[in-house]
Amino acid sequence: MVQCFCGMPHGLTRRGMFAATVATLMLPGRGRAAPASAGPADPALLADLVTANHILFDQNVVDGFGHVSVRHNKDPSRYLLARSMAPALVTADDIIEYDLDSEPVDPRGRASYLERFIHGEIYKLRPDVHAVVHSHSASVIPFANTRIALRQIIHIAAFLGGGAPVFDIRGAGGPATDMLIRNNGLGKALATTLGPHAVVLMRGHGSVAVGPTLKHVVYRAVYTEVNARIEAEALSMGGKPEFLNAGEAAAGTKTGDGLVGRPWELWKQHAEHRP
Amino acid sequence: MVQCFCGMPHGLTRRGMFAATVATLMLPGRGRAAPASAGPADPALLADLVTANHILFDQNVVDGFGHVSVRHNKDPSRYLLARSMAPALVTADDIIEYDLDSEPVDPRGRASYLERFIHGEIYKLRPDVHAVVHSHSASVIPFANTRIALRQIIHIAAFLGGGAPVFDIRGAGGPATDMLIRNNGLGKALATTLGPHAVVLMRGHGSVAVGPTLKHVVYRAVYTEVNARIEAEALSMGGKPEFLNAGEAAAGTKTGDGLVGRPWELWKQHAEHRP
Amino acid sequence: MVQCFCGMPHGLTRRGMFAATVATLMLPGRGRAAPASAGPADPALLADLVTANHILFDQNVVDGFGHVSVRHNKDPSRYLLARSMAPALVTADDIIEYDLDSEPVDPRGRASYLERFIHGEIYKLRPDVHAVVHSHSASVIPFANTRIALRQIIHIAAFLGGGAPVFDIRGAGGPATDMLIRNNGLGKALATTLGPHAVVLMRGHGSVAVGPTLKHVVYRAVYTEVNARIEAEALSMGGKPEFLNAGEAAAGTKTGDGLVGRPWELWKQHAEHRP
Amino acid sequence: MVQCFCGMPHGLTRRGMFAATVATLMLPGRGRAAPASAGPADPALLADLVTANHILFDQNVVDGFGHVSVRHNKDPSRYLLARSMAPALVTADDIIEYDLDSEPVDPRGRASYLERFIHGEIYKLRPDVHAVVHSHSASVIPFANTRIALRQIIHIAAFLGGGAPVFDIRGAGGPATDMLIRNNGLGKALATTLGPHAVVLMRGHGSVAVGPTLKHVVYRAVYTEVNARIEAEALSMGGKPEFLNAGEAAAGTKTGDGLVGRPWELWKQHAEHRP
Repeated sequence: MVQCFCGMPHGLTRRGMFAATVATLMLPGRGRAAPASAGPADPALLADLVTANHILFDQNVVDGFGHVSVRHNKDPSRYLLARSMAPALVTADDIIEYDLDSEPVDPRGRASYLERFIHGEIYKLRPDVHAVVHSHSASVIPFANTRIALRQIIHIAAFLGGGAPVFDIRGAGGPATDMLIRNNGLGKALATTLGPHAVVLMRGHGSVAVGPTLKHVVYRAVYTEVNARIEAEALSMGGKPEFLNAGEAAAGTKTGDGLVGRPWELWKQHAEHRP
Repeated sequence: MVQCFCGMPHGLTRRGMFAATVATLMLPGRGRAAPASAGPADPALLADLVTANHILFDQNVVDGFGHVSVRHNKDPSRYLLARSMAPALVTADDIIEYDLDSEPVDPRGRASYLERFIHGEIYKLRPDVHAVVHSHSASVIPFANTRIALRQIIHIAAFLGGGAPVFDIRGAGGPATDMLIRNNGLGKALATTLGPHAVVLMRGHGSVAVGPTLKHVVYRAVYTEVNARIEAEALSMGGKPEFLNAGEAAAGTKTGDGLVGRPWELWKQHAEHRP
Repeated sequence: MVQCFCGMPHGLTRRGMFAATVATLMLPGRGRAAPASAGPADPALLADLVTANHILFDQNVVDGFGHVSVRHNKDPSRYLLARSMAPALVTADDIIEYDLDSEPVDPRGRASYLERFIHGEIYKLRPDVHAVVHSHSASVIPFANTRIALRQIIHIAAFLGGGAPVFDIRGAGGPATDMLIRNNGLGKALATTLGPHAVVLMRGHGSVAVGPTLKHVVYRAVYTEVNARIEAEALSMGGKPEFLNAGEAAAGTKTGDGLVGRPWELWKQHAEHRP
Repeated sequence: MVQCFCGMPHGLTRRGMFAATVATLMLPGRGRAAPASAGPADPALLADLVTANHILFDQNVVDGFGHVSVRHNKDPSRYLLARSMAPALVTADDIIEYDLDSEPVDPRGRASYLERFIHGEIYKLRPDVHAVVHSHSASVIPFANTRIALRQIIHIAAFLGGGAPVFDIRGAGGPATDMLIRNNGLGKALATTLGPHAVVLMRGHGSVAVGPTLKHVVYRAVYTEVNARIEAEALSMGGKPEFLNAGEAAAGTKTGDGLVGRPWELWKQHAEHRP
């Protein structure tokens, strides 16, 4: 049983409990009461969220699929995420507020990502995390589908030094899922596998990166892909690559965390000038 | 012997039979009567077909070669395909209507693709198929030319879960063809190898993807290439990749089929903004 | 000893012979008489040569280095080649006429490529060849530097079916050259290794493709690179690729030769719209 | 102990010595006297430095990280380097003058790259070097992290023929650095490993290329990456690549050094036309 900010118990059976408790509050035609809003988010945060969507596309981390969220600046029990659409096309009007059960506050008919539960459950388990990226970036998948560990081969990806565990949905979802994190139970299982790490790989699917800000999480998502490509190349040519040791990874992570603004500025300019 | 919508028997000897039957209808200077038109196709369908051509180039599925067709919306025994040209340059005026023997209805001097028979014969054998892509996308070829199976390594390509058989033209065409599907006999052999699958690989040549709509087939053509690249990478680095199991592939295919509109919108915008 | 169109004997010692013979014709300040011009080349041919330069850059066959030539339409003993510069930047004013000893007709102070002898000596030995591309395209080099043969893995590169021999400059140039084809002797040795083939690889250096027209040679240069990438991928993933057999390669080459105009139109439009 | 142009002894303990010597010159709020300027640099040199920054990004040698410097044209004990920022965004106003201890002459509040000591210490040890590039270009890293040597597989990278040693920061920095060359001591250790070579690889980090001019060093940085990609491909496909021998590498380097202007012009035009 895990405690989230709302003080409610969470678990695989939580939705049923919640439904029973608030059944009398359901609105006609909604089937359920929408969560209360934390109020308008900081416009700069919204702008950064839009930019993050565009950067992740421009840097080949997401394509038509994948998503990025940020925790609401006024309330840690709310987060912001685009409606179900390609990240490259997201504008501020497409951003929806969610509670940590990933219920939309005011969807106004806008469809939600099927896998928004990734975000909500990670925000529940990881108070230090304020931004989450889910992607299918191509170089990472081979590490999610083999027993070869994704490890920190370059200092710029030192944040992988704590390990990048692999989540197999068969454990929590059974042998015949569609591989998607479709509910809070699966989201919680994924968040549990992520644990204290910066990145979790998803077998047959992709990966999730987390960070304390949008700039950090975009940096981590991009360089997870870069690290994977370099490690794969080192292995393909028959090498036995040496990785950063624990001390180097820890020190490198600290340094890298202080430098995330530099590539962000570049990527932002690059992304916003592409059609 | 296979039945098509026109009620005629089809097979390697069909063309001769047809020629004998309709010899009296031949027009002067044509050598053969042109099939009747099903009438003007839905303009939205034509526009989507043009867009599909552009997307497939923009997403590196086709280059100067390759083609995409769609079944006519008014008549399942007719399909629409560009004249012989690079897909990136196709406009609505370049679209020709064909019958399922791949005879053009009104070519007006426009040359036909040498391999249009791929399309006609698949439409004959697969009533569920309404769109076909043929390409030489690079990452797929290694799987067509080795005994390594192309398999569903990522949920986004779950449609490969039913298998992607390899067609070797030597069986139906003999040991010294130019590798092209130049007639209905070769087209039928290819369609037979395709069977109920979403994709068939062609040894020394390329592949064909099929789907119920243009959006589905473009999605499948793009992600077949993506899946191939990821699987090749996993193998190159010495891994033994795990694939989606049958249940996961079936569930994932169903989910994916419901999401093809999202990347289509992105790809469309991207393709139409490139020179 | 090889006969070229000028009726002069050619060989490693030819330049000395020539210098002795024509010493009385040397102009002041030139050190040697310039060859006579065949007259203005067909403007359409010049335009295609400029386009070929741009396409080869746009398709990643050449970068700052590499060159493409075409035989003069009025005189098979003359050929046209840009002055020493990056192909992407070539204009019609940069084209110089050369004789088959690669002496410029009217350089007007424009520097010549150090390796123009590749072109002249191939034109001498191969009357069927009317266009030559020399490049360092990256995927081809591994085949030039290992004992792994570059072979026709896809029908679109069926022209490789006759074999792509590897030229090692150590044979004709000794153990300490700068790897460049700096004179007619080295050019002749390379042309001899090329023999009747469409492509010759150069150890530690690159490759040369030849063809009957600019469109053919550009097609061959592009698809030699594509074929190399696909074959390398098939090998990297541990496969034992099957190649087109001799009959398939012969038939495929014939078909491909008839289709070179289609990608040319695409590549031309693509190249001329890029900065 | 190494002598640099300023006549001061240099070594791991030098900073302490320097601090003691000039303590009386320290300005309020600076903590240390700024070095004297060599005066305004040649505007053409500054323009080339800006261009070099843009080219290195456009050619995928640097991304948000990495830097390029040039020795001051008026004083070999000064060098020019951008403030801490992404190279693609550098303008002439961002260039800072440094002494060879990598102290900025007139920072005006502009932050310095953490690793500027790479540049200063190489300029001290290598009077022949007038330009330095530090990058994390992706194909080079596998050679920095395995025991597979990066070797001259193509004549265009003949400058690698003298060897490309690998620097492991654990030797000079201990087992738990953040991998960065954060001070003159680490810079000197790196410069010592570089020795007389054109390129030094950095385990878990990247590489440094040096040259007599900006055009040379940009050429070397680009083709080091190209060579690494080709060598990796040759190894991945299971080949045993042959490399240029010592004589070929020496002759090829001399030739290449005379040709660096050609790709520079191309890359300059290409880089300045991209957003």
